[in-house]
This record gives sequence, structure tokens and C-alpha cells, in this order.
Amino acid sequence: MITFDASASGISGDALARAAASRARPALSLLESGKGAGGEFTDWLRLPEETGGLDAIKAEAARINGMSEVLVVVGIGGSYLGARALMEMLTPEFGPKKVVFAGKDLSARRTAELLKYLGERDFSVNVISKSGGTTEPSAAFRLLLGLLEKKYGEAAKDRVTVTTDPCRGALLALARERGWRHYGIPSGVGGRYSVLSPVGLLPAAAAGIDTEALLAGARAEKACMLSLGAESPELRYASARRLLAENGFTGELLSCWEPCLRGLGDWYEQLFAESEGKEGRGIFPVSLEMPAELHSIGQFIQQGPRTLMETMLHFAGDGPDLCVPSTGDGIDDDLSGKSLGGIASAIRRAVISAHSAGGVPVMSVEAEKPCAEEAGALIWFFEAACAVSAYMDGVNPFDQPGVEDYKKIMRELLRNE
Amino acid sequence: MITFDASASGISGDALARAAASRARPALSLLESGKGAGGEFTDWLRLPEETGGLDAIKAEAARINGMSEVLVVVGIGGSYLGARALMEMLTPEFGPKKVVFAGKDLSARRTAELLKYLGERDFSVNVISKSGGTTEPSAAFRLLLGLLEKKYGEAAKDRVTVTTDPCRGALLALARERGWRHYGIPSGVGGRYSVLSPVGLLPAAAAGIDTEALLAGARAEKACMLSLGAESPELRYASARRLLAENGFTGELLSCWEPCLRGLGDWYEQLFAESEGKEGRGIFPVSLEMPAELHSIGQFIQQGPRTLMETMLHFAGDGPDLCVPSTGDGIDDDLSGKSLGGIASAIRRAVISAHSAGGVPVMSVEAEKPCAEEAGALIWFFEAACAVSAYMDGVNPFDQPGVEDYKKIMRELLRNE
Repeated sequence: MITFDASASGISGDALARAAASRARPALSLLESGKGAGGEFTDWLRLPEETGGLDAIKAEAARINGMSEVLVVVGIGGSYLGARALMEMLTPEFGPKKVVFAGKDLSARRTAELLKYLGERDFSVNVISKSGGTTEPSAAFRLLLGLLEKKYGEAAKDRVTVTTDPCRGALLALARERGWRHYGIPSGVGGRYSVLSPVGLLPAAAAGIDTEALLAGARAEKACMLSLGAESPELRYASARRLLAENGFTGELLSCWEPCLRGLGDWYEQLFAESEGKEGRGIFPVSLEMPAELHSIGQFIQQGPRTLMETMLHFAGDGPDLCVPSTGDGIDDDLSGKSLGGIASAIRRAVISAHSAGGVPVMSVEAEKPCAEEAGALIWFFEAACAVSAYMDGVNPFDQPGVEDYKKIMRELLRNE
Repeated sequence: MITFDASASGISGDALARAAASRARPALSLLESGKGAGGEFTDWLRLPEETGGLDAIKAEAARINGMSEVLVVVGIGGSYLGARALMEMLTPEFGPKKVVFAGKDLSARRTAELLKYLGERDFSVNVISKSGGTTEPSAAFRLLLGLLEKKYGEAAKDRVTVTTDPCRGALLALARERGWRHYGIPSGVGGRYSVLSPVGLLPAAAAGIDTEALLAGARAEKACMLSLGAESPELRYASARRLLAENGFTGELLSCWEPCLRGLGDWYEQLFAESEGKEGRGIFPVSLEMPAELHSIGQFIQQGPRTLMETMLHFAGDGPDLCVPSTGDGIDDDLSGKSLGGIASAIRRAVISAHSAGGVPVMSVEAEKPCAEEAGALIWFFEAACAVSAYMDGVNPFDQPGVEDYKKIMRELLRNE
């Protein structure tokens, strides 16, 4: 389960408890009632219980893997960041990739390279888009479809699976017309809250991730949160962020202490930036890989402007550790015989000490180990804390009106060029 | 060559020209004189001319490639970020990796996975560390050495190449004792300014990158800068950043419009954060992948706090483009028949318009195309602009005293555990 520690944040235990009880708890009630701003997009709260579709998803993943070496997931933003977070946490880094992502760039160079790579192997496509109209995945999908049809002719239709609005939209219509299998993104679930729906579950299953365990972990964390209420890690984390933001700490660094958390870091950036960045307010979220970025951003954190808070995200343990052998030559003798986990823990404690002494409020979020259950728990933790935090700040966590500004201009330009 | 455009930044042409002439130009003179703060670390200015070592580096790369399928580059911070930037820009994304990076994490999980992967193929190691004492690469190196000796016995010594201080240090001593080949990191070159030294050049050559062209591109950009002076893109960019920071824009988003620029974005973050984050000041640098992150951070940029400036980094052109076919079914007809490059350009122009209308100062940096010459030019551009910008802000661009705080505490903990 997830634990939260604010002891190095500079916030007194009393102040935190008060904010959690008097501000976060009502925000949670508002969230659960579905009556707050954007309340029509709170169906994600119930995704951990929605296990009924898992058999079909697992069967589809098996079907895809039976015919293909690579699954190309086509999507942008919330349509892919969750799946990528799961894959980076739970599948091997080295060796050939079972799942690759497309539709998040408009690079002729990268797309040509991908098409050539796919030309040489059997592949399937899972296109994920609520409307089907988003520009970047739409462009990529059409190019991939062209290659599929060229390679497989009529049989190409068994190699396209669509995840889209369950009732309407151009992509659903096209899927029905062409005979592509399709899955629904529940209407009351927005993109950045959708990883525990078919949006994330199908790619995850195709990558070999245990989706039953994922949902079970989310359910367990949810049950914990509801039972602990204001004392839950979710509400305490949301409260700490709000209190710090109200005291001038306008950026949050999510310092991730395992390389496998990098995708979750990117997912967290969208979740919080798009939920909270409204009305001229919002804490700017940046994820960092630790300890690596101590050697790049560390100087700025220690001695730059005092406007950053830091949230350390790490695992309590992770199975077998490795011990550093001696070189026998006196280099860095303080390492000989020590475990990597032990060294990392020492660095992390040193960083908490140094950064907080330097005026950076530090919080800690701990999960048990990188496994499907804890991945589900982490997803629940951040989604719930984010929504509560946004309601505490008086903004709608579930819309993103600002992204329409450039899209309007873009559509004009594309229409006229 | 690199061009810079501040027309959407809100800074008047006059104000920019004045700042460049009266503040940036003197900062450049200070930099060239070697008499400013940290002046003993300005030898990186001369790296583009140092072509004498290239033959040896290329020969070493060929020797490594002749005996190994994979080169493991062990280093952290400036010891690897430059090489990774070059590789992501100039080598294929798909297919087996010729170069992998280690020594930047303390993950038993990831390290065990890497050791298993390397157990199955022939590999060499290039360990990069000025002192040899940095904790994370030191730990990784010792584990890799153990595997090398187990696999190859006596012959392991031909599979280790060391890049370190040319005159002293534990790693140099160890290399001499063990008979490992070694290359020098010039003394007057700090880590984050070292990519055009053997630190970056050897891994780049091993990955098949044209190092002659890299240095030639840096030389050409340098010559341009020295000849244009206050009117150079470097000094104008440095000036624009300073003026904006002095007007409350405390974060910079480097919006990268090609996926292959992601590594350069990470390198830029260290370069600027570690050079400028001092004395409670500094512009917080964050690199973004565009257009992907319009669908994650875009809402925050458009409607969050008005404290961010945005620098668009893109290529003018990149060879053959791809055209989007029609689905024949009415989905997103504004895309049919359009090139990916044309669509991307429309999005970028729409974003410049929307973001600047929303109160985000936008600047543009354009390189010609992703090739070794332009990579060298981009490296020169950012290194020079960063050093000038730091001097304009009255800080030493070349030290990083803040990173000692946690290291002191860490050494205590490791000594006593």
C-alpha cells in the first residue's frame, strides 16, 4: 500500500491534519457526490471495480500476440501515457519491444523509420482516441493503415483494434464499417484518468501485465483511502501540496528513485498539469529521475530560487539486491560490500536532509515494490490526490479548455493551406 | 546554422538589441578572456578546434565495435548526457542498441537486468568520470568489471576504456595499473560543457556518428557567433532570457519539435540548471516533446500562472516528407494529402500564436536538419548562450557548489553504515 510522510515538509502535524479534515475531506465528498465542477467526468472512481471486461481484454491481447510480434499503440496524451507508465514499471527495459507507441509526433523521419521497422515484422495496431479527430494520432493511424493493407490485404482488418467513444464519433463509425474490433472508453472518464479502462488495460495486457492484479491493487488502495478519510495518504498529500502552494512553493518536483518510474513521472505531469493549471494558478509539476538528476538539476534545487517543493517517490524494497564488489584498489571504499539498495537509501536520506535544510519542503511517497498491484495503487493514489487537490483549489479537475486556443487556430490554418 | 527569432517574445527589437550590445557583448568578452568567475573552466571554448585526437578516437571506436555488439557507457550527469543527446538525434530509434548507458541509477532491478542482457553478448565498457569517485558510476563500474572478468578473464582488459582526468585521480591510477586504455577529459572543461571532448566523442564514434562533422559544425557556429557579436543568435537568446527573467518569467520551456531532440532537451536542462541555479536565482529549465506535450502540459502553459517563457526548437527541414492518405471516410479531412511536416508547421505556428496571445513569451531557435554538423552547431549555440546568460546574471557558470551539501551527508552515512 502507499504511505505518505510530510515530516521534512516544514508543515506542522497540526496544520496538516487541520487542512486534511477541514478542506480535503469536504473536497473528497464533493468528488464522490459527482456534483462538483466536471462531476460528469468522475466515472473513473469506479474503474477499479469494473473487472467484468477483463476476460475479453485478455482474450483480445492473446489474439493480438498470437498473430503479431509488435503492437503499435496509436494515441496521444491520456490515450497513451498511462499504458507507457505501466510498461516502463512492469516490463523489461532490454530486448525487443512488444509494444511501441506512435501518433504522438508528426515526424516524417521517425514515422518513416517506424514504417520500415514494421515492414519487416508482423504487427497489429491499437488506435486509442475518444473522438478519432485528434490530429497527430489520426495522421499516424492513416499511414499505419496504409502499410497494414499493403502487407495483409483483406486480412488487415483483423489487425486493427479501436478504443474509442462507445456510442458515437467518426472512429467508431469507421470501425463498424470496416469490421474492426472496438472497445469503449467510458463516457464519464476523461483521458488523463483513463489508464484503468480499456485505454490502458488492453496495451498492458498485450505487454504481459497482470490486469487483474492492477485493478485489485487500485481497489485495495481506494478502500484504504475511503476508510482512512482525512488521515489517508491521498488527502494528506493533497493538503500538503495546497498548503505549500499557498506559501509560495509553485513548482513540484516528483523525484523518482527507480528508473522504472520514469513513465509514471510523465503520466503524473499530465495528470496534475492539465487538472490544476487553470485560472492563472497551479503547481508546475516536473518529474525527475533520481539519483541521476542530482547531477543535473540538483544544484538548482539546492541553491536556486526557493519556490520548489519536492516529493520523493520510491519503493520500500524490490527483491534481490546487488552488492558492490571491491576493486581492491582503494577507489571509493565506502561502497565495497554495500548493497545498491542500501547506497540508494543513504543518498536519498542525505538528499532529504540537504534539500530541506536548504529550504526545499520535502515529502515522501512510498510504495512496496514494482508489481502490478502497487502500480494500481499508485495510479489510484495520484488520481485521487490530484482531483481532491484541484477541488481544494477551486478549479474543475476534469476539463482542459486551454488546449482549444491553439487548436482553433490550427484548424483554420489547415483548412486554408 | 542556427537562427533565433524573438518576434513573439513581447520584447521590443530595440530593447533586445540594447541588452545584447550593452550586457551580452561584455559578458562574451569576459568569457573569452578567461578572467571571469570560473574562468579556469573555459577551455571548452576551444574544443571545436581540437581535431587532433579524432583519429585515435575513431580508431578506438572501430576497435571496440570490432570486438563487441554493445558498448556500455558508464557515467552520470555531464559524463553521459551529451553522448545520449547525440545518439538520440543522429542514430536510429528502432532496432538493437549499440550503446547503452549505466551508472546513473542504483537500481538492483535494472542493473541485474542489464548484467543478464550483457551476459548473452560481447560487450565493452567506457567508464567516464573525472575523479573516478562519483558514487553511482563507481558502483555500476565495479559490477560490470566483475562480469567482464568472469566472461573474458585476462582478455577483459581490452574491453575497458577509461575517460578521466589526464593527470591524476584514482581512476587514472587504476587504468594504468590494469592496462586499460585511457583518454583525458581536459582539465579546464567541466562535465556539462564536455560533450565535444572525448567524453562525448568516443561514445558518439562508437555509435557511428561523424565526429569530424560534429566539430566542424561547432566551429562554423562559433565563427558565426564571434563575427556577429551582439547580433548573433547566441547573444540575442541569452539577452532575451535575461530580460524575460527580470520581468518575472522564471521558468523556461524548451519545446522540442522532433522526437530526436529529446536527449538534447535533457542535456540542456543540466547545462542551464547547473550553470545558473545559484544565489537564489536562475530560470528553471524544462524540456518538452512537441506536439505530444500540448496534450499534457499545454493546458497549464495556456492557462496556468503567467511565469513561463517558451523557446521553440525545431528543424527547418529534414529530407523526404510523408503525406497523410485519406481514409475515404470523412475523418479529419483537413489532413488528407498534407505532409507531416506541413501539419507540424501549422501546429507550431498555431501554438506560437495561442501561447503568446495568452501571455507566454515565445522565442524560436531553428537548426537546418538533424545531422552531425547541426548537432555540433546546436551544442555550441546552447553552451555559449548559457555561459553568457550566467555572466549577465552575475553568477559563475562553471561551478556547482550546491551539490556538495547532500554528498557530505551521504559520505557520513556510508562511512558509518
